[in-house]
Amino acid sequence: MSEDKINYLKKIIDEKIEEYFTKKINLATHNKLLYESMYYSIKDGGKRARAILFILTYGIFKENYEDYFDFALAIEMIHCYSLIHDDLPCMDDDDLRRGKPTNHKVYGEAIALLAGDGLLNEAFEVLIKLSIDDRASLKASYEISKAIGGFGMIGGQIADILGENKKLNEEELRYIHENKTGKLIKASIISAGILCNCDQDILSTLGEFGEKLGYAFQIKDDILDVIGDEDHLGKSINCDIKNEKSTFVSFYGLERSIEIYDRLSLECMDILDRLSKLKDVNLLKSFTLKLIKRNN
Amino acid sequence: MSEDKINYLKKIIDEKIEEYFTKKINLATHNKLLYESMYYSIKDGGKRARAILFILTYGIFKENYEDYFDFALAIEMIHCYSLIHDDLPCMDDDDLRRGKPTNHKVYGEAIALLAGDGLLNEAFEVLIKLSIDDRASLKASYEISKAIGGFGMIGGQIADILGENKKLNEEELRYIHENKTGKLIKASIISAGILCNCDQDILSTLGEFGEKLGYAFQIKDDILDVIGDEDHLGKSINCDIKNEKSTFVSFYGLERSIEIYDRLSLECMDILDRLSKLKDVNLLKSFTLKLIKRNN
Repeated sequence: MSEDKINYLKKIIDEKIEEYFTKKINLATHNKLLYESMYYSIKDGGKRARAILFILTYGIFKENYEDYFDFALAIEMIHCYSLIHDDLPCMDDDDLRRGKPTNHKVYGEAIALLAGDGLLNEAFEVLIKLSIDDRASLKASYEISKAIGGFGMIGGQIADILGENKKLNEEELRYIHENKTGKLIKASIISAGILCNCDQDILSTLGEFGEKLGYAFQIKDDILDVIGDEDHLGKSINCDIKNEKSTFVSFYGLERSIEIYDRLSLECMDILDRLSKLKDVNLLKSFTLKLIKRNN
Repeated sequence: MSEDKINYLKKIIDEKIEEYFTKKINLATHNKLLYESMYYSIKDGGKRARAILFILTYGIFKENYEDYFDFALAIEMIHCYSLIHDDLPCMDDDDLRRGKPTNHKVYGEAIALLAGDGLLNEAFEVLIKLSIDDRASLKASYEISKAIGGFGMIGGQIADILGENKKLNEEELRYIHENKTGKLIKASIISAGILCNCDQDILSTLGEFGEKLGYAFQIKDDILDVIGDEDHLGKSINCDIKNEKSTFVSFYGLERSIEIYDRLSLECMDILDRLSKLKDVNLLKSFTLKLIKRNN
């Protein structure tokens, strides 16, 4: 049942993305290839974890989550922009993403650069448009903008680059993962709470949940990068090792990384159990479990 | 007198930028180099034409333009992000900008990429923050977001890239310049009008002025690229020719380009003369003249 609902949400998000970009591609003239390249990277892509976390968190407090599909779309656009730029030759130089050639492998570097810029911009355009008629959206958008900026995702990316070929300490490793992956996941969850006008206590609880889940998410990525199978992952494994990056596994070793991961996972479930005394959190719990158990 | 005021505004903008980024650099930890590289490109940079156009347009209708310095800052951040990405090796591959080495020449490509992303993001963060207490800012920010997105500046950039080593027709050339340079200049002017709650007639007039000025601005760039002197420009001349791009001059020839430029300049001044029957536009007129006569 909850599995059905989650699959249904993923399907709807994919459809909304198709609808959004097909419309833009049809409207486009000399910018058609830009939107085609944006669509190439965002379609059929990944787990839609951030968008689904956003919608399910929203669904805990209010029913009309359909009104905020555009918000969820903007979150996926942001995630996708970060992947396109991350894959560029001057960054991770990856050829494969989600089982298909990366954006720059298909369209060339210049267009991939602009496709990333375009997606970030498009996300803000969508968020600002939503906010014109809805004050709560504006505060939620502000949360997102901070999470993905220089003191958030981009901050994590720069620390990641500077840490290449260097032995990082625990605090540096934590900074990178908290910011590079964690903050957008956390903001996807908190922004839904802001949209539902949740009080500060609930927002803190959501924040704590989002932070641990985001952190766990990155550790799992690092673990899968070592033990995952390339077909399931849809990207080259051992790529972080190739790039001489400090990962959780290279820092703590595999066994200890799995231990930390398991502890974080339990803590995430505990927080949801606490929330379940106030609200029905079953769907979010199922999806969190699904993310915890993922093998890609 | 008006010259003094314009120089004063430029000085204030430079100071605000210094203040903004110094504060961020001081706050930064592992993301310090990110903010240093952003600041490297945005400091002491250029004419601040967009920010000054914004402030002077605002000043036509209302006095409290100091309240919107952050808005002007955001516009300059956007402009700067577009230059950093434009200069990257996969784009125009420029070594020199405003008389100093381009961002990637100093910090490397990965950091330059992130500095550009960071500036775009920072601009939206500033705009959204401003909008939380001020509804007009939100509408003005929406105008900016559209102007710089896939149907604006980024659209123009992609058309520009696709047009390399190709003979463009007049419509294609116009699309590129209207979007790549024109739309942000136009939006800098219109957004000030929106912030002042100007009526639709005035907004249309401002839009017409901004469009012609933005267009003229790009033609002048192309003309200076051929006849300008490298010391004054602070960038490599003939660089568009090196990149085999269709410019106004390569399309219409120098003489005809200057003719078109002069006509557009006159039309800009005519629009301001019309506005001057309603409002004091002297400062904006002086600055427009200064831009028209610029040799860098």
